[in-house]
Amino acid sequence: MRVVIALGGNALLPKQAKGTAEEQLEAAKNAIIRIEGVLKSSQVVLTHGNGPQVGNLLLQQQGTSEVPEMPLDVLGAMTQGEIGYFIASAVSLTGLHSATLLTRVVVNPEDPAFRNPTKPIGPFYEKPVREGMKMDAGRGYRLVVASPEPLKIREHDAISALLEKGFVVIAVGGGGIPIKGSGEGMEAVIDKDRATSLLAGQINADLLVFVTSVDSVYLNFGKPNQSRISKTSVKMAKKYMEEGHFAEGSMQPKVQAAISFLEQGGKKATICSMENINDAINEKAGTIISNV
Amino acid sequence: MRVVIALGGNALLPKQAKGTAEEQLEAAKNAIIRIEGVLKSSQVVLTHGNGPQVGNLLLQQQGTSEVPEMPLDVLGAMTQGEIGYFIASAVSLTGLHSATLLTRVVVNPEDPAFRNPTKPIGPFYEKPVREGMKMDAGRGYRLVVASPEPLKIREHDAISALLEKGFVVIAVGGGGIPIKGSGEGMEAVIDKDRATSLLAGQINADLLVFVTSVDSVYLNFGKPNQSRISKTSVKMAKKYMEEGHFAEGSMQPKVQAAISFLEQGGKKATICSMENINDAINEKAGTIISNV
Repeated sequence: MRVVIALGGNALLPKQAKGTAEEQLEAAKNAIIRIEGVLKSSQVVLTHGNGPQVGNLLLQQQGTSEVPEMPLDVLGAMTQGEIGYFIASAVSLTGLHSATLLTRVVVNPEDPAFRNPTKPIGPFYEKPVREGMKMDAGRGYRLVVASPEPLKIREHDAISALLEKGFVVIAVGGGGIPIKGSGEGMEAVIDKDRATSLLAGQINADLLVFVTSVDSVYLNFGKPNQSRISKTSVKMAKKYMEEGHFAEGSMQPKVQAAISFLEQGGKKATICSMENINDAINEKAGTIISNV
Repeated sequence: MRVVIALGGNALLPKQAKGTAEEQLEAAKNAIIRIEGVLKSSQVVLTHGNGPQVGNLLLQQQGTSEVPEMPLDVLGAMTQGEIGYFIASAVSLTGLHSATLLTRVVVNPEDPAFRNPTKPIGPFYEKPVREGMKMDAGRGYRLVVASPEPLKIREHDAISALLEKGFVVIAVGGGGIPIKGSGEGMEAVIDKDRATSLLAGQINADLLVFVTSVDSVYLNFGKPNQSRISKTSVKMAKKYMEEGHFAEGSMQPKVQAAISFLEQGGKKATICSMENINDAINEKAGTIISNV
């Protein structure tokens, strides 16, 4: 079985954490130990976000004028190295061999997202300190960057080659480095869930797993009448989405990415938490979305 | 033919350069365009140093107290992402597919190098600003870190797998991330030439190429009686080294790393410049060291 698992930000860096190397390594170890079974029984790609890390790195870039500041695509590449190393270190403890692959993702430079940046990244500021900053939900000014649609995972062939040889592959970190078809980097941040869904389709994964901070997808989440979805179809998931059951920027992109995978020919997608992932993979927990 | 090419710092970042993303990408493009032929005709691993980049990143880490500073092993991982991305972008222009692999290198935590750090990294300071700084050749204080002997390239199996599938592999960046056998990171910087030589042995490379800023190895370099070595044996190279012909920290580690590869069973090592690399690979330029 070929499985793609998207590790949520929370799985790799607890919300209260400052983001030290020790905290990140500890979180990676806690995540990997839980999925050791599936890593050993299946071909697995692990993907991950980079929100807090790229934000910290951006702040450090701006901390000194002695050294040139790197653009966002390069910072994304750097966080792939950083976070990939923590995950690879954790995988090593299982005795399995991993391969952490720098991953670029082709986007369309004419994507309307470039004219309407929506993705807030990095720290909050009292005033805008550089171009492209916007007030974020009254909490302060943040850099807001474009989040274009991922069109092709450039390294999908290397990922498949490594899976076939038995490596646990760590890839598509931070949603991948956005590039034009010509290979030129773009200053943007791709949504990690969308890029992961695209990869799962490109490498013909049997199962796509989104690990998040809640155990399942819910209808009327947080309301007195909330109810857990254990299994649903693409058709029903779309209907729920239209009815506004899923929070934007939180559960909605995961459900949307799951649907997108299934519409590309994928068989099954699961949304679950780090705590119930093994049961979810065995259809005993979490939310399963499938074409049937 | 399986070839491992170690790109020197100069090949990827001209000495006068500040290290902007544009400068680094441009240098990578200039390097890759010269070796397009060998990339297309052979299985090639490209390795590279990270001296200026890790120094810059270290300075940025210290530029703000708002964000936790990462240890040296993590900074190494980040520069693998950064520089690997520039090289991968350049390889894309040839139409070839590359795979940039995070690479860890096992060292012995009891290596005497840890008790006697010798490798200066990062910027110069007027005064020591953190523990472990030493005066470097009268030019200022620099952080001096351990440079232990590389014992095993952890990802050599993934590198071989990718070469067999036809990818140009970018690996062992900055000499690799130093780890203990147990997988735990170590604050050190491994010599890139030694780590590259070790890799070449582990993956049974036919040819190991060190690209540096001079066209060949010379006897009495810089003196009126300097003479170019076109071909030599391990035995003669050792004799020249004992006679003090090669500068420490410059040509000597390259000659030593070439000898080490040949003593591990390697067939041929070449030391040349970016300008003559194609002729050097065809034994028409540079310095060839072999067992015969």
